[in-house]
Amino acid sequence: MSYNKAPSITAETINPKVKIFNYEPCGEIVRHAERLQQEMDENPDSLPFPEVIQCNLGNPQVLGQRPITFFREVLCLCDNPDLLNKDEARALFSPCAIRRARRIINSVPGKDSGGYTSSRGIKSLRQAVANGISARDGYLSKPDDIFLTDGASAAVNTMMQILIRSHEDGILCPLPEYPLYSASIILHGGTMVPYNLTEDRGWGLQIFEVKRCLEEARSAGLTVRAMVVINPGNPTGQVLSITNQEEIVEFCRKEGLVILADEVYQDNVYVENKKFHSFKKVARSLGYDEKDLSLVSFHSVSMGFYGESGRRGGYMEITGFGDDVKRQIYKLASVTICPNIAGQILISLVMDPPKLGDESFETFEAEKEKIHSSFLKRAKTLEKAFSSLEGVSCNKIEGALYFFPRLHLPSLAIKTAESEGVSPDVFYTHRLLDATGIAVVPGSAFHQASGTIHIRCTILPDEDKIATMIPRLKAFHESFMNEFRGSEPYMNDLRR
Amino acid sequence: MSYNKAPSITAETINPKVKIFNYEPCGEIVRHAERLQQEMDENPDSLPFPEVIQCNLGNPQVLGQRPITFFREVLCLCDNPDLLNKDEARALFSPCAIRRARRIINSVPGKDSGGYTSSRGIKSLRQAVANGISARDGYLSKPDDIFLTDGASAAVNTMMQILIRSHEDGILCPLPEYPLYSASIILHGGTMVPYNLTEDRGWGLQIFEVKRCLEEARSAGLTVRAMVVINPGNPTGQVLSITNQEEIVEFCRKEGLVILADEVYQDNVYVENKKFHSFKKVARSLGYDEKDLSLVSFHSVSMGFYGESGRRGGYMEITGFGDDVKRQIYKLASVTICPNIAGQILISLVMDPPKLGDESFETFEAEKEKIHSSFLKRAKTLEKAFSSLEGVSCNKIEGALYFFPRLHLPSLAIKTAESEGVSPDVFYTHRLLDATGIAVVPGSAFHQASGTIHIRCTILPDEDKIATMIPRLKAFHESFMNEFRGSEPYMNDLRR
Repeated sequence: MSYNKAPSITAETINPKVKIFNYEPCGEIVRHAERLQQEMDENPDSLPFPEVIQCNLGNPQVLGQRPITFFREVLCLCDNPDLLNKDEARALFSPCAIRRARRIINSVPGKDSGGYTSSRGIKSLRQAVANGISARDGYLSKPDDIFLTDGASAAVNTMMQILIRSHEDGILCPLPEYPLYSASIILHGGTMVPYNLTEDRGWGLQIFEVKRCLEEARSAGLTVRAMVVINPGNPTGQVLSITNQEEIVEFCRKEGLVILADEVYQDNVYVENKKFHSFKKVARSLGYDEKDLSLVSFHSVSMGFYGESGRRGGYMEITGFGDDVKRQIYKLASVTICPNIAGQILISLVMDPPKLGDESFETFEAEKEKIHSSFLKRAKTLEKAFSSLEGVSCNKIEGALYFFPRLHLPSLAIKTAESEGVSPDVFYTHRLLDATGIAVVPGSAFHQASGTIHIRCTILPDEDKIATMIPRLKAFHESFMNEFRGSEPYMNDLRR
Repeated sequence: MSYNKAPSITAETINPKVKIFNYEPCGEIVRHAERLQQEMDENPDSLPFPEVIQCNLGNPQVLGQRPITFFREVLCLCDNPDLLNKDEARALFSPCAIRRARRIINSVPGKDSGGYTSSRGIKSLRQAVANGISARDGYLSKPDDIFLTDGASAAVNTMMQILIRSHEDGILCPLPEYPLYSASIILHGGTMVPYNLTEDRGWGLQIFEVKRCLEEARSAGLTVRAMVVINPGNPTGQVLSITNQEEIVEFCRKEGLVILADEVYQDNVYVENKKFHSFKKVARSLGYDEKDLSLVSFHSVSMGFYGESGRRGGYMEITGFGDDVKRQIYKLASVTICPNIAGQILISLVMDPPKLGDESFETFEAEKEKIHSSFLKRAKTLEKAFSSLEGVSCNKIEGALYFFPRLHLPSLAIKTAESEGVSPDVFYTHRLLDATGIAVVPGSAFHQASGTIHIRCTILPDEDKIATMIPRLKAFHESFMNEFRGSEPYMNDLRR
């Protein structure tokens, strides 16, 4: 399009903070997968695979996960409260969904679900969230510490906007990282202070490494304000040990850092020897209260066994900040007026699900258990399949919806990638997608350690899909390795 | 709360951009109204009025406006697509709502309503919005120019983030203004360049005044990037004449300014001699196309006859920007992943409502007409009541949901306010609220011209409420004027 002088906005003249950040999960590989899908829709036999399998995104319901019946019944009734008074509705909705929806609607200003709410969310729903947190942790949570939000990403953005004053403010973030954090820090004009997770120790966090990074940042003149911890981990799929969490709490308390705890995978843990513990619970167990530590916990309706990603619901629990800071957070939230009501309702249901005695309880438990045990099976199957590939090492999938295997590729593959002007992980993922229809994300999107090659893959495709996907993956990988092997030996022993 | 050294975040050490902006619609008067409401709930006879009437917020459904049946039926079915296959549902939902919900669900990735969507919104819904715009304007709208958003406020924030690089970038905004704009400009580090609307000319916009402000800003070294126009106007309730709109288009084209057109009140026009015309339609009618003018139009599900404010749905139509800029907007949108699905569905219904022949058509038209004609009556009644008050002048309420009358208060009232450390408008609104339960917003929240005193009042309370509210208002105002009159004469002739 050729412009005459008037329209002066081009990609060269927009806000440079927008221009420079990278956001690869929605980048080239996704677009390429979409193109292939479209090609396939138009001409089903044109490609060498039967379907595109999106292992690139943590998007449960698009990959076939069924929603929790009780949640949708309540949502549906709240959308159309007239149904609550109709006899015919009793044939379609469980009695406890009707009761819950009535209770919610009666607590909402205007007694319908279409008005603006308080910018921090409807009080009764914040109370439900606080009750759920109290029951989970065994420590009291207060509704006035809860802000309901349009998902966790919006909440993270709000906190970055509150904390970052200039590029001299640093935020500690794990590497490999979920790129929401770097994007949000850049957009708000701050500096990311990365600390490395240790792949050799199952992507564990080593506090001396965090301390090293903090000190380096401080000697470079940065004021480090907060430490981001993602537990269970994205993209790494690890679950922190409680000892590790205690070290983090002690460290942040001592150094005066806010803990920004991304706890959106709290219902996704797959190993017997580890459990999810919130950072608030760990801090309170150590005897630290609000005056000792500033802590923000993020949660959302997108993951877990609920997977209501597109609904955009979540909360942040803010403790250890003065009322004056909370008032500023409230004011900032009020610029976009309020979080969406369906998301508010859903997060209240996630934190306050049906109880024993409710008519929906057994169905709810069965649906939850079915999804959870399937995640467990899929995690094991995928971990085993990837670990069996030549030159691939894969840590245990302990939690979240992802794993982040490392690839040791032949040097000819690396050189070929270089000659094509792309990094080896991008080269591999494109080859994989073109040959098999399997879309995964190159590790560079998550700032993998330099000189290493990773991919992030989700465990979300259902068991049948995984069963058809694994032989395709194995065949591709074998042929890829053979193509580029040259005179190199087989790369089977990767124990480091 | 007393902190030891560790937690270092206080209101003094947060991002100063957050600290300095003002956002009064959610400010002190709202909190005070909430306190009174709570007092009344706990002790119904404790206050000298029977109820708190919220005339401070454009929040239709909380003030009793009924939602459009068809919209809620479709939303409800999309929340729980299992209903689409149940016979019992036919007794509860209209056939065309069932058809529409089925069409929507079939077009959504995963064929359910819980997954992440594209960051710009679901394609079929963007197509529905584009079709609605094309039908409204008589000029083609393309789905690739549409970004679905969590309401208009989120969209405005996105565009400010794109346009503003530093405090040397200016954005022209009307005064009195809807404070979203100043808040968003401050938060993104830019400079607001205010231009005055002319109260004497029914809050009309005079292009020579805008030009004067532009030139002043440029000589102060600012790069002015865009001009915000709110039409119909908030807080002023005016509707721009088409000649005025043409002048704005010519001016922005010539000066290379992006038009940021806040068109969220497009379905709220109450006068015979004016109609809503989108800026895009005006520009195209003048023969200007994409290469001549950069234009963003904002719309939402919050206002109009639909009033689904808490749902947070909206769109922006972006024309006259290159694909490279649109890619950056897409990337920015992807940081919060996607707009909420219920909001996406609702804005598609607003722009593509039932048509003649659909089973819901007559009900839909009747509901719409009932709300619209009631708005018309309320606007006339309130305009007449306020105009009849001593010392109050009130422009015609042409559109939107507000009016912004000017108060000429006795000098003793102004002095008393000063002695209490508040501005006269704040003094008046608090007195009004305490005496009558009527909550309105002081004009200073909207940056009224200095030396003037205004209040913003919505037309949203229903007709019965308005009928009981007016005698209370009149009695209060008379007694207020008498209390502060001293030796001043009656202030009846305000024609200027």
